[in-house]
Amino acid sequence: MLNILATYDLGAIHGIVNSTPVLHVSFSPDPSDPFPAILPMIGQMGSFDYPSAGIDEPLDCYLHGYVSSRIMNLARSSEGEGLPVCIAATKVDGLILSLTPNSHSYNYRSAVLHGYAKLVTDEQEKLWAMKLITNSVVFDRWDNTRVPPDKAEMSSTVILKVKVVDGSGKIRDGGVSDERKDKDKDEVTGRIWTGVVPVWETFGQPVPSPENRVKEVPEHITSYVARMNKQNRAYAIDAVDVTLPKEEQH
Amino acid sequence: MLNILATYDLGAIHGIVNSTPVLHVSFSPDPSDPFPAILPMIGQMGSFDYPSAGIDEPLDCYLHGYVSSRIMNLARSSEGEGLPVCIAATKVDGLILSLTPNSHSYNYRSAVLHGYAKLVTDEQEKLWAMKLITNSVVFDRWDNTRVPPDKAEMSSTVILKVKVVDGSGKIRDGGVSDERKDKDKDEVTGRIWTGVVPVWETFGQPVPSPENRVKEVPEHITSYVARMNKQNRAYAIDAVDVTLPKEEQH
Repeated sequence: MLNILATYDLGAIHGIVNSTPVLHVSFSPDPSDPFPAILPMIGQMGSFDYPSAGIDEPLDCYLHGYVSSRIMNLARSSEGEGLPVCIAATKVDGLILSLTPNSHSYNYRSAVLHGYAKLVTDEQEKLWAMKLITNSVVFDRWDNTRVPPDKAEMSSTVILKVKVVDGSGKIRDGGVSDERKDKDKDEVTGRIWTGVVPVWETFGQPVPSPENRVKEVPEHITSYVARMNKQNRAYAIDAVDVTLPKEEQH
Repeated sequence: MLNILATYDLGAIHGIVNSTPVLHVSFSPDPSDPFPAILPMIGQMGSFDYPSAGIDEPLDCYLHGYVSSRIMNLARSSEGEGLPVCIAATKVDGLILSLTPNSHSYNYRSAVLHGYAKLVTDEQEKLWAMKLITNSVVFDRWDNTRVPPDKAEMSSTVILKVKVVDGSGKIRDGGVSDERKDKDKDEVTGRIWTGVVPVWETFGQPVPSPENRVKEVPEHITSYVARMNKQNRAYAIDAVDVTLPKEEQH
């Protein structure tokens, strides 16, 4: 069985964005430049005004990254609503190996947002967004670092806030999907293996830096690594067989 | 030690593109639409005219994906050189956990290409590109499927060829990089663990489809899965310590 689900469900879309370590952010750098630009950035959905908003409620997208002065200058000088950007998040969950090249595919989750980007200028909101984004790298990391950032760190950090105007998601899971014309041929099915190779992101053993002076790897890191490894693997394997109820799966 | 290397080396850039399972392709859908669009696509660098060209020589980018009629119609109707696109490939290799949120980062490899996209209309070139892209999902998969594609499959497949006009890459590896002001404070270094969590893409045990009739998972799949798992893991772990010669590493 194969599912390709196009979704406008906010919870699903926001969940894909929040669990993707690098977002791709596209913008038009210059009316005289024919090419759009893409920057890899780190980002999270959230609401500063309604911090208790759920994942399935309207949220803004906060972005941080190796930010070229170009996107910053464009966002700073943009008039009205802000700089129009497109944000994409994609995760590969499996390789779909079927009878013909044409029916090959991936299991995947992808989300795309459109919105207007502005620099965050309010100090409280910036601090809140920095914490949100740092904790997306490793859960609870913020409180386990030297905080708050000092004045120089605050002014050198640039956070973009994207007011989302629309978004969509696509989720492909399940197994192979071949056509009757091939499935009916013994010569074909007798020699071609079909199935799915699950794919997921693995976190390895934390490697202390030469200057690290804390003996044990702290619990907020070890538990995050263990949880993500379990969760990522389970998603990719469960995605293969969407016909079984969850409890019958691996 | 920390390295951030900006590169225009074709071999490095093409290598990042070719080893990234999903590329993000950006284009401007419509002069009246303020937002650029991003599509996740599968792609590979190659040269149909000079098939023996090395990875460090000028190559085209061939793209295939869940292609909206929008990008296809735009590429089909584009005049002159083709539709201007931006292609981005990014891989995360590690989480850099340092003393302050500001010095947190990723080890990563990223590449960006700009170029003009046209539909591939020559049948031989299309077939060649389909094989190139299929074999990028699993090495040698093409010859282990029902090929060649029939007439209906050929005409329903759309391949974009991007003539690259410029490109750049960025590679960050190494460990944490903190500032003297924090490294000199016992109160800070005594309680904050610093180091790197290596990150890599794992391929799981192949799961046969319910309709599969080939008993053993074929060698072209098992050897690919084993090789990629070894290679991806080694890259992420080796990237942490760039000061040691390779043979002293894990």
